[in-house]
Amino acid sequence: MNRRDFSRFSALALAGSTLPSFAQGASSDKPIGYAAIGLGTISGMFMRACQESQKAKITALVTGHPDTKGKKFAAMYGIPETSIYTYEQFDRIKDNKAVDAVYVGLPNSMHCEYTVRAAKAGKNVLCEKPMATSSVECRQMIDACKSANVKLMIAYRCQYDPTYIEAERLVQSGALGNIQAVEGAFGFNFASPDFWRLKKKLAGGGSLMDVGIYPLNTARFLLKEDPTEFTAMVSTRDKTSGRFAEMEQTVTWTMKFPSGITGTGASTYGGTMPGFLRINGDKGSIELSNAFGYTGSHLVSLSKAVTVDVTSSTDDVSVFRLEADHMAECIRTNTQPKSAGEEGLKDLIAIESIYKAAGTPMA
Amino acid sequence: MNRRDFSRFSALALAGSTLPSFAQGASSDKPIGYAAIGLGTISGMFMRACQESQKAKITALVTGHPDTKGKKFAAMYGIPETSIYTYEQFDRIKDNKAVDAVYVGLPNSMHCEYTVRAAKAGKNVLCEKPMATSSVECRQMIDACKSANVKLMIAYRCQYDPTYIEAERLVQSGALGNIQAVEGAFGFNFASPDFWRLKKKLAGGGSLMDVGIYPLNTARFLLKEDPTEFTAMVSTRDKTSGRFAEMEQTVTWTMKFPSGITGTGASTYGGTMPGFLRINGDKGSIELSNAFGYTGSHLVSLSKAVTVDVTSSTDDVSVFRLEADHMAECIRTNTQPKSAGEEGLKDLIAIESIYKAAGTPMA
Repeated sequence: MNRRDFSRFSALALAGSTLPSFAQGASSDKPIGYAAIGLGTISGMFMRACQESQKAKITALVTGHPDTKGKKFAAMYGIPETSIYTYEQFDRIKDNKAVDAVYVGLPNSMHCEYTVRAAKAGKNVLCEKPMATSSVECRQMIDACKSANVKLMIAYRCQYDPTYIEAERLVQSGALGNIQAVEGAFGFNFASPDFWRLKKKLAGGGSLMDVGIYPLNTARFLLKEDPTEFTAMVSTRDKTSGRFAEMEQTVTWTMKFPSGITGTGASTYGGTMPGFLRINGDKGSIELSNAFGYTGSHLVSLSKAVTVDVTSSTDDVSVFRLEADHMAECIRTNTQPKSAGEEGLKDLIAIESIYKAAGTPMA
Repeated sequence: MNRRDFSRFSALALAGSTLPSFAQGASSDKPIGYAAIGLGTISGMFMRACQESQKAKITALVTGHPDTKGKKFAAMYGIPETSIYTYEQFDRIKDNKAVDAVYVGLPNSMHCEYTVRAAKAGKNVLCEKPMATSSVECRQMIDACKSANVKLMIAYRCQYDPTYIEAERLVQSGALGNIQAVEGAFGFNFASPDFWRLKKKLAGGGSLMDVGIYPLNTARFLLKEDPTEFTAMVSTRDKTSGRFAEMEQTVTWTMKFPSGITGTGASTYGGTMPGFLRINGDKGSIELSNAFGYTGSHLVSLSKAVTVDVTSSTDDVSVFRLEADHMAECIRTNTQPKSAGEEGLKDLIAIESIYKAAGTPMA
């Protein structure tokens, strides 16, 4: 049975069960149709990924620039101009039967609003991380999707990357023994003070929200546990460029999981901080280096306990496609996404706890 | 001018200046004589290193087992049996003109006593890290050596390793830009609950004392700054083996330096935690991996800002020899060791602060 056959089989198997979103347009041999909301860099990646997918395609666009960006991408991806929406027109998407789901690639502060509006329009939601700018918003999003009986998936790309899935397998197999500690970090040096991620109103918080979330979420993904205790500090060395007028430059934290596993983490928007994550057990250790980017995450063993040397694809949209396909499969088969809204909520709870521990609460 | 010529030249240049320890036996063309105090694993490394040195040699032994260990090592290194001392006889070493300095390779809790006694005997002191079990002891050691006009060096081996010196050069050159953050860790999984490092009375504290001190000290060495703010937590997952009856299994911490640089650190005695240290600037990052061991520390660049790929010697006593030679040169030329007692004190102050921040103060 190939993938397409499996999809058909699953659809037949589920015939008669309640599949409201599936019923809204997608048939078993047609790709799931996504409306991309926000046409920035990350949506560009997602749209390219869908073009390479057998299971997903872009069928509508939501943009503040329908005549320029909208028409450009509509032409690229064969989308009828009637399926280009402005933000004001967005709610009309409920009548577009070619749209099974939306992909929310907006600034963090808009995730909640457009997830809730998409749910009300009866559309499934694949939302970029961080899920929202607060745990309160996350809960609103979960509730809205539950009420509308649509699926909500958070775009934790790494969880769909075979390299990270191999790390998950190794950790869960017990090959490293009892895990004792985890260390990770991720950061960039943003040159421009005008970038939206440096505006508190749009981003909700600093580097922890958008890049610190990678080691945090990946640690949770690998350990299958959620940290409950935190210590943290923030720091801003660059006091002159204006980049950090609204938020801190760097965050460092420690965390403890209910089992007693401890961890350290760091993130920055004001320095190079190549992504990494190390998982240390009492039998062995593994490391993900060059981690969390679109390509080339590298998983190796740091001890004799296990042998592993895996590198992620060099195709920069490969993992976006796996992510788009997972959501498509969940819609087709009426199953819960691996990285559902509840996962996004857990990270926001941790992020709020870290900022609070640092003495700089988010709200 | 070769090294020996340089030594002779330095000695001539200094003729007439006050060199009490130099006057106690070493002449310019003779190696500096060390008495090894405590004949465990690390003293074994140090003695082998001296055998490979032109500048240092072992000329006396201090041991609780003079007839077994003492005679064995005396035979190996050509030491007269009259230069084997028990701990009770130790103070008589003041009359041994072949001894210019002592190497303190004892459990942490004995460092202070034997440093003070060696100073009173007019001998220079090279003391293993951690310098002592408290900052109070460190200050006693510094004072005793000052009063006796002898040198005090802490055996921060890595500071004499060309790989770490290259990292220091890169950081200090500004090639990485302004440093923003540092991450590091080091730990082992000790199988036996009987090891002295797991006994609070002998070790003074847990893994932070003996292995966490590596990323801590190396961060200070590379940054030329001392952290002043800390958050921390400790954790013990293994509650059954008895190994952690007296101290924690794992420590994690964050630290902030006066410049605003922040850092994370971790150490354990209950898991594999391969040594590493990363230094992240706003232009670039470097990483020391496989770090802090006797061999094979690996320094690489993690960004395009610099190009470096250096690996430490595969000779397991090579860095011990560089360390022994540095102290020998300091004695000959009456200069202050790079890693003087004040450096050891700074780490104990930081360690005390970390345990205090974790809610588990040392005293």
